[in-house]
Amino acid sequence: VDNLSSTMTHSVKLITLEGGEGAGKTTQAAALVERLRVAGVESLLVREPGGTPVGEQIRAIVKGDTERTPGAELLLFEAARAELVETVIRPALLAGTYVVADRFSDSTIAYQGFGRGLDLDDIREANRIATGGLVPDLTILLDIDPAHGRARSSDRDSAGHDGTQFEDLSESFHRSIANGFRELAAAEPERWRTIDASGTEEAVTEAIWHAVSHALELG
Amino acid sequence: VDNLSSTMTHSVKLITLEGGEGAGKTTQAAALVERLRVAGVESLLVREPGGTPVGEQIRAIVKGDTERTPGAELLLFEAARAELVETVIRPALLAGTYVVADRFSDSTIAYQGFGRGLDLDDIREANRIATGGLVPDLTILLDIDPAHGRARSSDRDSAGHDGTQFEDLSESFHRSIANGFRELAAAEPERWRTIDASGTEEAVTEAIWHAVSHALELG
Repeated sequence: VDNLSSTMTHSVKLITLEGGEGAGKTTQAAALVERLRVAGVESLLVREPGGTPVGEQIRAIVKGDTERTPGAELLLFEAARAELVETVIRPALLAGTYVVADRFSDSTIAYQGFGRGLDLDDIREANRIATGGLVPDLTILLDIDPAHGRARSSDRDSAGHDGTQFEDLSESFHRSIANGFRELAAAEPERWRTIDASGTEEAVTEAIWHAVSHALELG
Repeated sequence: VDNLSSTMTHSVKLITLEGGEGAGKTTQAAALVERLRVAGVESLLVREPGGTPVGEQIRAIVKGDTERTPGAELLLFEAARAELVETVIRPALLAGTYVVADRFSDSTIAYQGFGRGLDLDDIREANRIATGGLVPDLTILLDIDPAHGRARSSDRDSAGHDGTQFEDLSESFHRSIANGFRELAAAEPERWRTIDASGTEEAVTEAIWHAVSHALELG
């Protein structure tokens, strides 16, 4: 299970986009895949939770309104992630395809840890078990003031990564998550690049491409 | 989260029944609850996976035939367990009610570990995260030859704890699980009592009651 991370460090190219609601991750992930394509790099776009048959069933649970504890929610996200890593992400990486993920394991630390208050070490262990030790090569934090992100998101029928409808969540919850992402980025500066997501869509796309192309030495 | 196991060791009374298919766990768990009632001890019977709203949704996934990896299956069982422990088992134990569980964390080690080949330490970590460190006070292994258990189970439309229809699973898979349970029981003799489940229903009930009443000093 540790094969990939230990022996293929230099050929693995997993890029994750992280951040709170309304930061533009979904739009920017699609734009990044397109920029990679133009640069001649084949890549696969994945989005959590879901992307596999059992992952879609899990997505239906976490996006639904059945009551559950933060611990159950954590392990449901990890179950969907385990399936996605083993059946989609790892085979793609092994075949030499780059993978762009719209959210990944860091979202679980931010939402279920900094947001819901679960123990951070437990979440890191759950991430390790679910991913078989796979860690992104590069993580882009789309940093935005939570109130700003909220205003953007309220235009859509969006749901948080914790599965709860965005409108139900408090301002302080979103602020904890935003601060959590910043703390994660500060702790591993070699993996993370923080980008101001308050600019225009085009400016943010450009900033992400600058970060990705330099970090991965694409040119 | 560790409160219960660290400070309430002497008042917690969680009894789990474990074993392969056809060992009679469900029948014997109900009989044990009845014997406890007659002895004046209130107890609650729980069965995994399920027993909570989100647990029933997870049960529908694992009992269904959607393809999934052993890792996803593990984390789905742990998600249902986390919900059951936090919303049902722990409150009952804290209120002084005994809990009798028809399968618990050891089934995950036997099925997903010894059966499916997942790393045992990873499963133990997942169990710890899901249960908040809750460990049974007493575990009864209903030990039966897998071929014998199979013959019993084939009379029913039963499904294995791994969610796969019993008939689909190979003899060697069931033998690995039976040996796994024996190994777990041998490693922690102070917690486990192994009972020959090949006898009559009444004889097995009597043997379980003998073990439980002595271990818990009920009389």
